Amino acid sequence: MFFHKQELQYNATPAGPDVFFARKMQEILGGQYGEITVAMQYGFQAWNTKLPGKYRDLLYGIGAEEFGHVEMIAIMIAQLLEKAPASDVEAAVKGDPTMAAIIGGEDVQHAIVAGAGARAVDSNGNPWQGSYITASGNLLADFTANANAEMQGRVQAARLYHMTDDKGVRDLLSFLIARDHMHQNQWIAAARELREEGYEDLPVPSNFPLSDEVGDVAYTSMNFSDGKQAGEGSWAKGPTPDGKGEFSYSEGPTTTAAMPPVGNHGDPRLYGTTP
Amino acid sequence: MFFHKQELQYNATPAGPDVFFARKMQEILGGQYGEITVAMQYGFQAWNTKLPGKYRDLLYGIGAEEFGHVEMIAIMIAQLLEKAPASDVEAAVKGDPTMAAIIGGEDVQHAIVAGAGARAVDSNGNPWQGSYITASGNLLADFTANANAEMQGRVQAARLYHMTDDKGVRDLLSFLIARDHMHQNQWIAAARELREEGYEDLPVPSNFPLSDEVGDVAYTSMNFSDGKQAGEGSWAKGPTPDGKGEFSYSEGPTTTAAMPPVGNHGDPRLYGTTP
Amino acid sequence: MFFHKQELQYNATPAGPDVFFARKMQEILGGQYGEITVAMQYGFQAWNTKLPGKYRDLLYGIGAEEFGHVEMIAIMIAQLLEKAPASDVEAAVKGDPTMAAIIGGEDVQHAIVAGAGARAVDSNGNPWQGSYITASGNLLADFTANANAEMQGRVQAARLYHMTDDKGVRDLLSFLIARDHMHQNQWIAAARELREEGYEDLPVPSNFPLSDEVGDVAYTSMNFSDGKQAGEGSWAKGPTPDGKGEFSYSEGPTTTAAMPPVGNHGDPRLYGTTP
Amino acid sequence: MFFHKQELQYNATPAGPDVFFARKMQEILGGQYGEITVAMQYGFQAWNTKLPGKYRDLLYGIGAEEFGHVEMIAIMIAQLLEKAPASDVEAAVKGDPTMAAIIGGEDVQHAIVAGAGARAVDSNGNPWQGSYITASGNLLADFTANANAEMQGRVQAARLYHMTDDKGVRDLLSFLIARDHMHQNQWIAAARELREEGYEDLPVPSNFPLSDEVGDVAYTSMNFSDGKQAGEGSWAKGPTPDGKGEFSYSEGPTTTAAMPPVGNHGDPRLYGTTP
Amino acid sequence: MFFHKQELQYNATPAGPDVFFARKMQEILGGQYGEITVAMQYGFQAWNTKLPGKYRDLLYGIGAEEFGHVEMIAIMIAQLLEKAPASDVEAAVKGDPTMAAIIGGEDVQHAIVAGAGARAVDSNGNPWQGSYITASGNLLADFTANANAEMQGRVQAARLYHMTDDKGVRDLLSFLIARDHMHQNQWIAAARELREEGYEDLPVPSNFPLSDEVGDVAYTSMNFSDGKQAGEGSWAKGPTPDGKGEFSYSEGPTTTAAMPPVGNHGDPRLYGTTP
Amino acid sequence: MFFHKQELQYNATPAGPDVFFARKMQEILGGQYGEITVAMQYGFQAWNTKLPGKYRDLLYGIGAEEFGHVEMIAIMIAQLLEKAPASDVEAAVKGDPTMAAIIGGEDVQHAIVAGAGARAVDSNGNPWQGSYITASGNLLADFTANANAEMQGRVQAARLYHMTDDKGVRDLLSFLIARDHMHQNQWIAAARELREEGYEDLPVPSNFPLSDEVGDVAYTSMNFSDGKQAGEGSWAKGPTPDGKGEFSYSEGPTTTAAMPPVGNHGDPRLYGTTP
Ligand SMILES: [Ca+2]
Ligand SMILES: [Ca+2]
Ligand SMILES: [Ca+2]
Ligand SMILES: [Ca+2]
Ligand SMILES: [Ca+2]
Ligand SMILES: [Ca+2]
Repeated sequence: MFFHKQELQYNATPAGPDVFFARKMQEILGGQYGEITVAMQYGFQAWNTKLPGKYRDLLYGIGAEEFGHVEMIAIMIAQLLEKAPASDVEAAVKGDPTMAAIIGGEDVQHAIVAGAGARAVDSNGNPWQGSYITASGNLLADFTANANAEMQGRVQAARLYHMTDDKGVRDLLSFLIARDHMHQNQWIAAARELREEGYEDLPVPSNFPLSDEVGDVAYTSMNFSDGKQAGEGSWAKGPTPDGKGEFSYSEGPTTTAAMPPVGNHGDPRLYGTTP
Repeated sequence: MFFHKQELQYNATPAGPDVFFARKMQEILGGQYGEITVAMQYGFQAWNTKLPGKYRDLLYGIGAEEFGHVEMIAIMIAQLLEKAPASDVEAAVKGDPTMAAIIGGEDVQHAIVAGAGARAVDSNGNPWQGSYITASGNLLADFTANANAEMQGRVQAARLYHMTDDKGVRDLLSFLIARDHMHQNQWIAAARELREEGYEDLPVPSNFPLSDEVGDVAYTSMNFSDGKQAGEGSWAKGPTPDGKGEFSYSEGPTTTAAMPPVGNHGDPRLYGTTP
Repeated sequence: MFFHKQELQYNATPAGPDVFFARKMQEILGGQYGEITVAMQYGFQAWNTKLPGKYRDLLYGIGAEEFGHVEMIAIMIAQLLEKAPASDVEAAVKGDPTMAAIIGGEDVQHAIVAGAGARAVDSNGNPWQGSYITASGNLLADFTANANAEMQGRVQAARLYHMTDDKGVRDLLSFLIARDHMHQNQWIAAARELREEGYEDLPVPSNFPLSDEVGDVAYTSMNFSDGKQAGEGSWAKGPTPDGKGEFSYSEGPTTTAAMPPVGNHGDPRLYGTTP
Repeated sequence: MFFHKQELQYNATPAGPDVFFARKMQEILGGQYGEITVAMQYGFQAWNTKLPGKYRDLLYGIGAEEFGHVEMIAIMIAQLLEKAPASDVEAAVKGDPTMAAIIGGEDVQHAIVAGAGARAVDSNGNPWQGSYITASGNLLADFTANANAEMQGRVQAARLYHMTDDKGVRDLLSFLIARDHMHQNQWIAAARELREEGYEDLPVPSNFPLSDEVGDVAYTSMNFSDGKQAGEGSWAKGPTPDGKGEFSYSEGPTTTAAMPPVGNHGDPRLYGTTP
Repeated sequence: MFFHKQELQYNATPAGPDVFFARKMQEILGGQYGEITVAMQYGFQAWNTKLPGKYRDLLYGIGAEEFGHVEMIAIMIAQLLEKAPASDVEAAVKGDPTMAAIIGGEDVQHAIVAGAGARAVDSNGNPWQGSYITASGNLLADFTANANAEMQGRVQAARLYHMTDDKGVRDLLSFLIARDHMHQNQWIAAARELREEGYEDLPVPSNFPLSDEVGDVAYTSMNFSDGKQAGEGSWAKGPTPDGKGEFSYSEGPTTTAAMPPVGNHGDPRLYGTTP
Repeated sequence: MFFHKQELQYNATPAGPDVFFARKMQEILGGQYGEITVAMQYGFQAWNTKLPGKYRDLLYGIGAEEFGHVEMIAIMIAQLLEKAPASDVEAAVKGDPTMAAIIGGEDVQHAIVAGAGARAVDSNGNPWQGSYITASGNLLADFTANANAEMQGRVQAARLYHMTDDKGVRDLLSFLIARDHMHQNQWIAAARELREEGYEDLPVPSNFPLSDEVGDVAYTSMNFSDGKQAGEGSWAKGPTPDGKGEFSYSEGPTTTAAMPPVGNHGDPRLYGTTP
């Protein structure tokens, strides 16, 4: 169960309205790596996991925090949109080109659809979608996905930080960036702990028998391009991060197979083109 | 530029047709973590990067391999669909319930739309979409995304391995699983090398000044749920993976802010509800 | 069957071109609550209903009108785009910042994709989609959906009215707003009549036995937030609109259940993380 | 802020596994009118509203409850999927057609993608999307949308009730159906109260001047189809629900306008076809 | 304007219910090349064209017919779903595997969402979307798109014809296939007439100056694969269909350019990885 | 298999940055008719075809070229975005309205999400999707789809040509326009050759027995609108392009059928509205 408290985790009040930045801020609300994504992602991982205990508690604990981040950003956006111009655009443009320019970059659905409110969309107006989230049931894979999500999210928030000089907006971003920082550390630590406790290992999934792999190609770096430096990295020689092999390097593939013959002429009731 | 060769990297011939498994196999072709995703993801990362040299060569080299994986799976699916029944379903069902059951699980668009061909969709028929890919320009974030993609992809291929006993299909899966294994190792090695060479570090992005964070909350594990074990992991005490702090733990938030007042009454031309 | 007549229901000629407003107007053409939505929604409700007679006639009658509204708005948008600039943008921007600002807010696909034509998209360029419509077969639910659609649509058209001072555009909006007004009244009247004639009642669906509900919670207003005024409305005390009970009020839930145990360890062939 | 408690509002334990019903149940989790929709919808309405007080408290209070419903259904689905078959399908089909049939109707991504977990999708595997929600800032319109959502949701849950005889599943559905019942009553009561308190009225939005409508058509029922009974309902004669007029009836439109001439020949740089 | 008549263009009554075929039939209703697509496509082409007269009249005339096809198929699907089982699935499966198998292949949203009604989706349940349609304003391009749409549509309908032996369904398909036949002929004739009357020509668009092309490559067939027979077709030698050149053939590209240098180090405020 | 070479087929270096044009150029990268579409479309047609030999070789050969076009445009866009402003927008707007205007028209995700990189989206930010491609297995239908794709693509590139005066961008467009020119010719030639060699003919599919059509309506032009000139084209009289009949013309439909009765009252467990 979730309980709501009419307080925020941090200040979320802008110095003034800015419809243009309101649009940009939608990215970290309803974008691929926005707060809705991480809230839902940690939620589904928690609800689906077969492993009760500290890992699940961690998922529940951070997941609920992220729903609060969704709220903070939505409320910030709604305030940035207060006083958004709904007036005759042509007049505004003629009288005030600066104003007009900002209008050009707004999310017009903020006014038309939401009446100066936040929306469940990204900064280009694409609706948030369930396919953004990852919850495979394999926690090492999923914690890696979580670490990535917090990295991408922090990169985006850092970029946004430089696209405004509104003190209030920057204050909130400074808070969110710090929490993304923390969450990166947490997911990386949790992934490491999963391996140390023997729940999972590299390569993921670790309990698929390596003997069922085509083993010849499991440690060979193959270069399908002609960039000569692809063989110079630590991914082409030396021990592998999974601790189970040595990297080797090959220009191009080490195996090849003939294109299979087209074996029959097709069912005529499918009306395809056949010999 | 890309050049095509009418050979495959590995055998991709099934022992027999199986329309039901053809549908399932679409997941690793056109799903969130299918081969189209990784091929496009590594391509866009390569085209966009500001860092020439070995990292870009690596992206180009693996990216081109993945386009070949797209081809192998598409050709495998097309063969699994040869001899797919296009006949009167009702008759088939009446005469052969086993047959009918399999029909129930097929992707009906394989026959109706593609004439027994593979499609750019996942195992539920959702079209592949550009929002599956990640290419932020920050290579540490992106290589983490790549490692995750290879983990999720290998988990899915391993699951599929147990959903068929067709020797030919399993042979191809064994190959793809081995390459996913390799690519996990490579992206993890490349991410480590980026840090060792000083291009990037934790937290990502590492050149955002930590002094611009709300520092008090950057190392505190806050538990917004009531699971007691959330504080027992290595993510709640001890040094942090970024090497820059010590984890602490708090039940619930350490900061709080009042919900901002609704500051004005709204523009009447927006026709919202106001006091 | 549908028959087309090369006339419009009302004037749809703008005073002049306005590529910026053309984009905004896409919202009521191809948006969530645009004319394509209501035309399709009433059509599918009519085609699917099991109840012949006056209600179905009403659906057919308004549905066909709405297809004509689609046409009026599309033709209006196409005219607003005539003379849309396809010229060198940089030159335009340098010479005429006002012009440039408006360009900033256009739907660039109007020019690139449609050659100065309307498109089946909303004001952010999201394609219209079949998931916008509602047709459940339960007419009281569906007429409520219809009333809502006409309310949302009229709110949006009223907002657009203030974003232009083009006499021709405003004239068409005045017409569409009047028809939305009428259609609100009609769907509310039709919903009321359904109840009066005994076809359906509150709660929808009314023929699900109330004895199969967990009855204790069917009339209790539970507040999962800490807003004290949630208990002060007519939704927390007094008779309920369905005429079958009395509202009561509770801070928080009145029932609770333990989180179910994670019952088994998972199938190893799914490669999830298990104890 | 949201706080999570590791308890459920009601029992959510099935009597046994049922992968087929798990798929169906996705509809009320991640479908157009599933619990994610109402949770997010009430959330965005609360975050965006310009009207503090009891209405906003109501939105917050029910919104938080709905996030708990999301959790209950996700956990129920995860349990229905435990023991889901990941084995060789062909063998299963040959040995056990009944089993095979059920496989035919499962969501194959439950196994391949989520490892026997719930997903943020509907019963056909379409990802949930932000365009399902409605939050216009006009509370009478939005509460009507909410009433509709609870009606559609209750209709779907009632249908699902008859598609299973699992005691545990039915018990949860009985609870959810009761809460949908309650929420229908609440939104209808709240909509009525808004009107009684003068915040809003019919037609929505009520503060758009009726004098700016093309008044002739605001009370006329026009029938664009040839169904004779369209004029027999209370929507074609008598007083209108808004209390401001009398319905009249017309076969076909009462106004007509010539199709506007195609006014210019198009910009040649758009490469369209012109006279 | 559109007017509706409560008659159909042809018989649309099945011999009996068939929920499985109802799902398949959704493809030609709401799929990429279903009737909604062609109805909307011809509509938008008509509304947007700058060329009044016979071509626009043709678009309006066929467009309105296609809306009637949408209706016929929707009504057919609704009838195929009457008597659709809403009963306990598990019991059905146990008692009647044949029944169960068919259930496996149904569109479960037909029952849960639409109450045994048609939906605006394809045979995999993907909602119809505005991005399926083509309306560029260039009529030779668009009529080619129309010819393709009628070809793809007729192929799909022909495939469906063999997936049922219901006399009523086949009768309707025979009608639709004949109309697709006619419309193929019409769009091909109209495209030819456009060229003969000088409105447009190959290559499309014909008024882009050929002198602004990189002329060296406008008539060279380049083979980026190693299939030797690519040079044996009429596309590699002899006069070109546009009547303006002669095909030549080259193994691989005839031009090459160095990969551009990565020119600067990136704006540090974007937090990308730079040298 | 695909092999990558770190060269381009043609120059792809702009004279200078232009974030506004970068957005527009996304249309021919990730739009409905962008390079990703044709690359994937020809790929899937090749992988799925049942007809080995010159036609398949052609598909492979052009398909691989198109992946190189994807790369050229992505690299061009990335260069157009170098030096894209990430600075304080408000300051920029105040100091430099021209700058601000251009900002208004940029794709804000270019900066926020991709760090000045290209994305797999169209010019409105809609992600590319698998439903853009066509691969039916019927090569005459598919080559017609290909011809259309190259026409639409060339129209869009020609429009873009006039929206910039950057010499480098225009140079690349001149190359791409020439290749689209070539590919139009090739697909038209290939379609003609398929017919000449007897693989397929009009109407598509040609092996569906014409005797199974409702023959009366296969050659009749029916006008469902009131445009008088619809009967004046070569599509209404004279021989048909398929060489198998004569066009005739009819005002309105030549057949009619009664709307089917609503045959039963619906299953009560579906909770629809019934008599
Ligand atoms: Ca966060
Ligand atoms: Ca791969
Ligand atoms: Ca309307
Ligand atoms: Ca609920
Ligand atoms: Ca048709
Ligand atoms: Ca190309």
